[in-house]
Amino acid sequence: MTVTGIIAEFNPFHYGHQYLLSQAKGLKIVAMSGNFVQRGEPALVDKWVRAQMALENGADLVVELPFLVSVQSADYFAQGAVDILMRLGIDTLAFGTEQLLDYQKLSRLYSEQAEHMTAYLATLPDHLSYPQKTQSMWEAFAGLSATGDRPNHLLALSYVKASAGKKLQLQPIKRLGAGFHSEAKDQCLSSATAIRKHIADRAFVEKSSPNAALILRAPQVTWEHYFPFLKYHILTAPDLTQFFQVNDELASRISAAIRSVATVDELVEAVATKHYTKARVRRVLTYILVKAVEAPLPEGIHVLGFSKKGQAHLKTIKASVPLISRIGAKPWDQLTQRADTVYQLGHTDMPEQTWGCVPIRPEAMN
Amino acid sequence: MTVTGIIAEFNPFHYGHQYLLSQAKGLKIVAMSGNFVQRGEPALVDKWVRAQMALENGADLVVELPFLVSVQSADYFAQGAVDILMRLGIDTLAFGTEQLLDYQKLSRLYSEQAEHMTAYLATLPDHLSYPQKTQSMWEAFAGLSATGDRPNHLLALSYVKASAGKKLQLQPIKRLGAGFHSEAKDQCLSSATAIRKHIADRAFVEKSSPNAALILRAPQVTWEHYFPFLKYHILTAPDLTQFFQVNDELASRISAAIRSVATVDELVEAVATKHYTKARVRRVLTYILVKAVEAPLPEGIHVLGFSKKGQAHLKTIKASVPLISRIGAKPWDQLTQRADTVYQLGHTDMPEQTWGCVPIRPEAMN
Repeated sequence: MTVTGIIAEFNPFHYGHQYLLSQAKGLKIVAMSGNFVQRGEPALVDKWVRAQMALENGADLVVELPFLVSVQSADYFAQGAVDILMRLGIDTLAFGTEQLLDYQKLSRLYSEQAEHMTAYLATLPDHLSYPQKTQSMWEAFAGLSATGDRPNHLLALSYVKASAGKKLQLQPIKRLGAGFHSEAKDQCLSSATAIRKHIADRAFVEKSSPNAALILRAPQVTWEHYFPFLKYHILTAPDLTQFFQVNDELASRISAAIRSVATVDELVEAVATKHYTKARVRRVLTYILVKAVEAPLPEGIHVLGFSKKGQAHLKTIKASVPLISRIGAKPWDQLTQRADTVYQLGHTDMPEQTWGCVPIRPEAMN
Repeated sequence: MTVTGIIAEFNPFHYGHQYLLSQAKGLKIVAMSGNFVQRGEPALVDKWVRAQMALENGADLVVELPFLVSVQSADYFAQGAVDILMRLGIDTLAFGTEQLLDYQKLSRLYSEQAEHMTAYLATLPDHLSYPQKTQSMWEAFAGLSATGDRPNHLLALSYVKASAGKKLQLQPIKRLGAGFHSEAKDQCLSSATAIRKHIADRAFVEKSSPNAALILRAPQVTWEHYFPFLKYHILTAPDLTQFFQVNDELASRISAAIRSVATVDELVEAVATKHYTKARVRRVLTYILVKAVEAPLPEGIHVLGFSKKGQAHLKTIKASVPLISRIGAKPWDQLTQRADTVYQLGHTDMPEQTWGCVPIRPEAMN
């Protein structure tokens, strides 16, 4: 049987995600961000709610990406997620993209030329951001034209790199409806960004997600719920450079700005430069918020939920892969657990995220 | 001219404090706690407001006790404050007390017997708290009966110890009106505790303090304003024992309790034991809140305000004592400054506490 992996955030789950899941084949395994997402912000609703939405729409198994995979630039995010999915036995990787290219061919190209392509990157001028350099690389080696605002395609190129040399079928699925970052409400399919932005508009959320009730019932958080903690920590930390990816320049820019800003957006605006993109600054602020330091990734894989089919698959692999299905006596990744603890502080109604939580089994509930 | 020192918190200033100042002689120098006070909590209103109240009621000079003097058990508090006042040239120390004993004689006794008295302390069983041991010591050596709830008298005994062997006249002033900790509203003179407790009762505050308008206009804070920061910090700190006076036992009691309590009072209740008094636990939580580590006390003395008489006195001593009258280019005590930064986070209207602040000069304003 085909075993398809999907890398996702479902922040929150919408009809585009439902379509993506419907197009994937065989057993469907989702590697999903935990409570903090790739662009460096807290997820709108917690990981358990998001896992449940995935399971209710066709996913068979949802596992959690550790914090230091979730909250990373595209290449590390893709690499970490693909590694976990491979250990879970996938043979196919499905992903949404704005353009249907021959990603398989690009992956072969990268497996043959990785060294040259990486060397080429190093020749590019330092005033370019890493995403800009990557675009230029693909232009030079594969003739891909510059992509503009097509973040799913960019992420797909990171999957291409992460899967190079691996026995993995790439299945691009053309994205329907609104673009990734679109905030527009008048599309036939709304983006997650639009839903987050218009979360207060109940009718809009109901129109945009098959799981509107779940989303609307859950405690919803944004960066602003965590700003007081971030500010307190920045103002009292003896040395910000002890945290992951905070260099002297970022530390001094952050410390200088914190006293005069009132929101996280203002802080990001004040700290970002051409070289330090806003997404990178947001990730760095997330690292500071959860006091992240460099640490090895966990051995075990944390299971957030499964269907009956997913459960059967877990039985076939559990001898070879350490699976964590209940955190408690047996701890999982310390940093992810700390991130959960901080996430919970953002909302008085937020339930416990870690200790004693067990995988969601939608079919078992019926 | 007599130069009288007074050690105070004025948290907040009331008619009893006014009486104390009126009884002191000559030039009156107040060594006052900063934004966190001896019993381990934030001051109701900030140090600048409290200094102004002192100056409006007869103080000639108000200097700030560094954080690690303010937030300390009675003996360290008294020692640190007396040292600072001696450097400022006092010859008399005035203090309120519930009973007029011959404190001068007790001071002489302690200067002669300190070694024996300290040795005696060490023989007392460990289940007694330090205040209980101290009471037993004074009973054994000076025949003082156990004191019960007379905290000003207890503090006076700490002043006795701190002034032993120094050329210092002790001037006890009998406390009028309500007891120190009294929460009663029906006394002719209200305690600071009663005012803090009934701060929402405007008429009561107006009846209780000559500076009610100043108190009521200022942003008022309690421990509860800082509880979210404390909780965040406790839950994310890798090792609480790195902070001042946090040993393994306290660290584990605090970490165990924090997930199940909703207020600082509940946390104190859960952590305190016979051995660790509530006041000590509150101080330890204050150290954690401001990330205090052991550090040398500052050389310089921070001036919060002065009258014309006070200014003239400062001129006579400034050659021999490093005075800090504006923190900015020239930093003062790092830990106290960090405590100020944290204090400011407690209330959105709280003004800047440190940078660029200059001494209050009530007479210059007229």
